[in-house]
Amino acid sequence: MPLERLGFVPNVLRVYALRPRHLELWNAFYEELMRGESALSKAQREMIAVVVSATNRCHYCIVAHSAALRKLNGDPVLVEQLRTNYRYARVDPAERAMLDFAVKLTEQSHRCTEDDVAALREAGWADEDIMDIAEVTAMFNFTNRLASGLGWLPNDEFVTLGLTADQEQEAGR
Amino acid sequence: MPLERLGFVPNVLRVYALRPRHLELWNAFYEELMRGESALSKAQREMIAVVVSATNRCHYCIVAHSAALRKLNGDPVLVEQLRTNYRYARVDPAERAMLDFAVKLTEQSHRCTEDDVAALREAGWADEDIMDIAEVTAMFNFTNRLASGLGWLPNDEFVTLGLTADQEQEAGR
Amino acid sequence: MPLERLGFVPNVLRVYALRPRHLELWNAFYEELMRGESALSKAQREMIAVVVSATNRCHYCIVAHSAALRKLNGDPVLVEQLRTNYRYARVDPAERAMLDFAVKLTEQSHRCTEDDVAALREAGWADEDIMDIAEVTAMFNFTNRLASGLGWLPNDEFVTLGLTADQEQEAGR
Amino acid sequence: MPLERLGFVPNVLRVYALRPRHLELWNAFYEELMRGESALSKAQREMIAVVVSATNRCHYCIVAHSAALRKLNGDPVLVEQLRTNYRYARVDPAERAMLDFAVKLTEQSHRCTEDDVAALREAGWADEDIMDIAEVTAMFNFTNRLASGLGWLPNDEFVTLGLTADQEQEAGR
Amino acid sequence: MPLERLGFVPNVLRVYALRPRHLELWNAFYEELMRGESALSKAQREMIAVVVSATNRCHYCIVAHSAALRKLNGDPVLVEQLRTNYRYARVDPAERAMLDFAVKLTEQSHRCTEDDVAALREAGWADEDIMDIAEVTAMFNFTNRLASGLGWLPNDEFVTLGLTADQEQEAGR
Amino acid sequence: MPLERLGFVPNVLRVYALRPRHLELWNAFYEELMRGESALSKAQREMIAVVVSATNRCHYCIVAHSAALRKLNGDPVLVEQLRTNYRYARVDPAERAMLDFAVKLTEQSHRCTEDDVAALREAGWADEDIMDIAEVTAMFNFTNRLASGLGWLPNDEFVTLGLTADQEQEAGR
Repeated sequence: MPLERLGFVPNVLRVYALRPRHLELWNAFYEELMRGESALSKAQREMIAVVVSATNRCHYCIVAHSAALRKLNGDPVLVEQLRTNYRYARVDPAERAMLDFAVKLTEQSHRCTEDDVAALREAGWADEDIMDIAEVTAMFNFTNRLASGLGWLPNDEFVTLGLTADQEQEAGR
Repeated sequence: MPLERLGFVPNVLRVYALRPRHLELWNAFYEELMRGESALSKAQREMIAVVVSATNRCHYCIVAHSAALRKLNGDPVLVEQLRTNYRYARVDPAERAMLDFAVKLTEQSHRCTEDDVAALREAGWADEDIMDIAEVTAMFNFTNRLASGLGWLPNDEFVTLGLTADQEQEAGR
Repeated sequence: MPLERLGFVPNVLRVYALRPRHLELWNAFYEELMRGESALSKAQREMIAVVVSATNRCHYCIVAHSAALRKLNGDPVLVEQLRTNYRYARVDPAERAMLDFAVKLTEQSHRCTEDDVAALREAGWADEDIMDIAEVTAMFNFTNRLASGLGWLPNDEFVTLGLTADQEQEAGR
Repeated sequence: MPLERLGFVPNVLRVYALRPRHLELWNAFYEELMRGESALSKAQREMIAVVVSATNRCHYCIVAHSAALRKLNGDPVLVEQLRTNYRYARVDPAERAMLDFAVKLTEQSHRCTEDDVAALREAGWADEDIMDIAEVTAMFNFTNRLASGLGWLPNDEFVTLGLTADQEQEAGR
Repeated sequence: MPLERLGFVPNVLRVYALRPRHLELWNAFYEELMRGESALSKAQREMIAVVVSATNRCHYCIVAHSAALRKLNGDPVLVEQLRTNYRYARVDPAERAMLDFAVKLTEQSHRCTEDDVAALREAGWADEDIMDIAEVTAMFNFTNRLASGLGWLPNDEFVTLGLTADQEQEAGR
Repeated sequence: MPLERLGFVPNVLRVYALRPRHLELWNAFYEELMRGESALSKAQREMIAVVVSATNRCHYCIVAHSAALRKLNGDPVLVEQLRTNYRYARVDPAERAMLDFAVKLTEQSHRCTEDDVAALREAGWADEDIMDIAEVTAMFNFTNRLASGLGWLPNDEFVTLGLTADQEQEAGR
């Protein structure tokens, strides 16, 4: 279970107890998307998670994935940029194209066309990568809806995770 | 594979060939949500699919799930109402509450509150059902993003599926 | 009366009975716009009808004009593309420019400028044609408002019109 | 021709010269709606014209119909309220209900339901009146689209019409 | 007090009486922005006032600043263009760039980037001017919120100010 | 200068150097609003700052005022709720009414009416307080526009301010 690695059992697991079979299957798919084989680094996938969740203003997911990304990249300043307004984030051009696509797909999916996919290719992404970017974006449009629809609350510990001295050390691994 | 039951291999399977492991895991989760144990009938879950996809103006998903719902309920008029403007659909009050929630969660998830969940309870839905409604809604916010982001095209056969004489017979089962 | 040609008296005529003089005058204008002299074919004018009505999510008009267009062009697949998301429609570049203009004029008329008219000219449309495109777009912004404001219901027969075997034959003329 | 009564030939007549038959038929319908039999006074119909045009930010129609309404009611202050933000207008409750409906129908027609019509009835409007309110609203959604799509410019004289000393006298009739 | 120059005490001064110290400090800042040293003429600063207030549909501010601009430039036609749809205003390219920026900053500030500032530089504005344009835009996003939140009503005299014979003379200075 | 109390000179002061007189006057007004006499506590005024800035997705202001509020209330969890989705914040009913008003005034000021002011009164706020709530909301609609229009960057230190051990101690005062 990915979130357990963060050191505590988040509330989401309690909520999903209503449908344990759903949790199991969702989690298998989620784990593959977020940690399986991909040209996108785990941190890049979490960058999409943070930016999509901020776009959808999902309380649970912004808090949880900001923490997860701080743990992965040890860079609280970058996380702060991504979660407030990703246009301010110090990322490379390929990552910027990735995030532009994620936001457009989240906000107005019906306006996406071949030109948007072409922009990703020009930024250096291969077709498998584009598939991964679209799927991770889609996944957080799933989780944002579930969390916001059911009112999930993140554990308080998430707020400072990756920000305090010990955790910053940890984040260095 | 759920869509094969409709009689042909839709394009989506060809596209997902880039990431066969993703397809497999997504499909296991999708099948459980759409056809596993639930107080929501299969047709009610497809009603959510049609209405969410229409809200997001997802070409592939509107066409495919309108066909799927016509096959399940043999009622092309109801499907037409759901896919143009669900406020015109002849559904019972519990289904109307279910669809109101699905549309709000799709369009402005961050404004959903306990009052929206309370409205579902008042309409007669139990907590497990509300979880199912939220998850199916979330699932089509996933598939709509993937289909619109990658430009999936439905097979032409979907357009008339459930509308011609033979198929209407079938739909009667 | 245009709709009578489709084989039955649609509900709209019953509703308009409150103001028979309005109906008569509206109809004379509507007939001229939709069937009078123009470089736009009747099918192209119905394409605008379908796309504007879909943009405004007008139940009555989507159903009625999808049927009308299927009768005119015998191409249910194209109609399905136009009514879900016209960006997926297999139309020629001049028609695409025509529909882009119709959608912008429908959604955000105050942002239309000379550049939008120039784009139509570049696509090959003459000034009279641009006037016709704007008027037909405007007309369905009228009918969509009237139908949605008063809750018009299309006759059930519209749903399959142009889709069943006999009608497909007819559509072949 | 209604606008001639204002004392000069507005530009719209020159533009419509491309399609004189359209103008003739549109005008016959427009005249009937705006000046034919109705429980709505002519000024009330112009109130809808001003408020719908302001909602759509249509330059030509705001200017022309503000002038027309000032001529009819001799009340420049009320016109100013209607054209900036009708929520500030000193109108009676039935007129407020009429304008609320016109704005909802203009901005989000697909969300209109029987409840909106019921609110008009409660405010004292009969079915014929509701038909008239919806038609006049629809008409300005037509003219706003045509004027904004084709970039119509009002004659400069409209700006002060009904505001100068002589005209205020006239407005007193 | 700037508004006193217009010849009467507007209602806003009565309302601000609740917090006289706020009024005094706000007014000192407002006066400096609107009448202090700047490459923007006073009329150009009022153009921003009118266009931002129209974008936000602020009744009080549209009426008051339309009057103020008519007094400054003696051009009621231009004011009418700016307050209905500034895209129709006969302004020079640098002013158009200034207004495009003001509207984007008002409607969707989070999408503003260095490209928007670069467009202002290309139009000929220096850095101090861009600061002034942004501050005046920001100021009317302040006053629009205050006036609309508290329901301020302009004095009736504003409506015709700068339009009647005497005032037109005055405006000629 | 308020921000200096936080221990370092933020970038905003460098940017404002272009117009030192503007800064001085703005700051005098800002200080009075945020720290002058009011029934709103300083923390409540910063709550409005955080929520308005999050609504407008202003990078600089979210970061700076989240830090300022953490310093004032020593409650990073509450700040996290306010800056992601204030509907999740554990605040008392009067504060919730205050924030509901601030968000409506920020997002759609032209729809605010006497009913919104009445809701504040029912929540226990006096007229002076309502004036203060509206002014603080308006102020951050000013600063958000200025910061986003000019691309201000917060100092990196803001990100963890009020989160690390020493600062948490400090925050306890």
